[in-house]
Amino acid sequence: MNDVLTTIQTRFSCRNYDGRPVEQEKVEALVKAALQAPSAMNIQPWKIIAITNKDLVDELDAAAMEIIATDPDQTRFNRIKDRGGKVFYNAPCMFLILKDPKAKWADLDCGIVTQNISLAATSLGLDNVIVAMAAIPFTPPGCCEFKKRVDFPFGYEFGMGVLVGYGIDKKEPHEIDMDKVTYIN
Amino acid sequence: MNDVLTTIQTRFSCRNYDGRPVEQEKVEALVKAALQAPSAMNIQPWKIIAITNKDLVDELDAAAMEIIATDPDQTRFNRIKDRGGKVFYNAPCMFLILKDPKAKWADLDCGIVTQNISLAATSLGLDNVIVAMAAIPFTPPGCCEFKKRVDFPFGYEFGMGVLVGYGIDKKEPHEIDMDKVTYIN
Repeated sequence: MNDVLTTIQTRFSCRNYDGRPVEQEKVEALVKAALQAPSAMNIQPWKIIAITNKDLVDELDAAAMEIIATDPDQTRFNRIKDRGGKVFYNAPCMFLILKDPKAKWADLDCGIVTQNISLAATSLGLDNVIVAMAAIPFTPPGCCEFKKRVDFPFGYEFGMGVLVGYGIDKKEPHEIDMDKVTYIN
Repeated sequence: MNDVLTTIQTRFSCRNYDGRPVEQEKVEALVKAALQAPSAMNIQPWKIIAITNKDLVDELDAAAMEIIATDPDQTRFNRIKDRGGKVFYNAPCMFLILKDPKAKWADLDCGIVTQNISLAATSLGLDNVIVAMAAIPFTPPGCCEFKKRVDFPFGYEFGMGVLVGYGIDKKEPHEIDMDKVTYIN
């Protein structure tokens, strides 16, 4: 084992934050880790938005919750309400990874960026969770206003979100499934 | 800085291997790192094939080169020929990350797995490169034979490949582009 393997092994999806801000130098380290991701043909088909304004994250949260409340199937809405009503878990910091949809491997490349942010965060003592629901506030009706406020660049689409902060609970990571591997020796 | 941030920063795409095999315990550590990837809703929409038989990697290489030779545009064929004619850079070990195409975030999840393997490899002193061209031998005409030989599971599709081994040359990673970041404070 080494620190990289241990970080990969122990990182878990944190869904309960105390709201304390992430130190600016740590945010910058996460941004650098994001940009150091490899990409197909080194196209770097991404943009990174680092939101450290917790009031804005809370506004995005409320907007997402309003949209989720209109789901015909109320399962998701009720699940979030039951766990406190916060879509983004009271996290103080949201990374948006946007993709250039014209790039052939954009989704896979965004996955690499996402994991760089997550592992870098864990290595710095920060909890984190990858959240597809970060896309929701950037859909109608609030999309235009929020896209403007975060400088969402024209021609890019939502790739993935990562929430970062200090968690209240620690958790064990998921069990791994060794049946998903075949060795060809 | 810490070992995780340093590994993210210094990892580079190695395109020249000496062919020495990867130790079995390192292969197993990479497999574990792959399986420890987070995934949307913890669906784990992947299968991992770890090929450590270099003769087979070389056969896949030759099959890929034959297919590439039929490209109407010969740019790629000539580029590979000029750098020695090995599509897979004489690497002794190939990881195939296969995806369940029905999973909504399958490509992004495969990106996460890919980066776990790459960073884990770098942390263990192994060079590596992410290779989309690993898909080529599993297309016609050789696809049926090769899929059978690697136990390519029914219903799964190629997600991404990672080559691992000991590199002959060390390289600097790509420059990062700070213009790709926006801070919203």
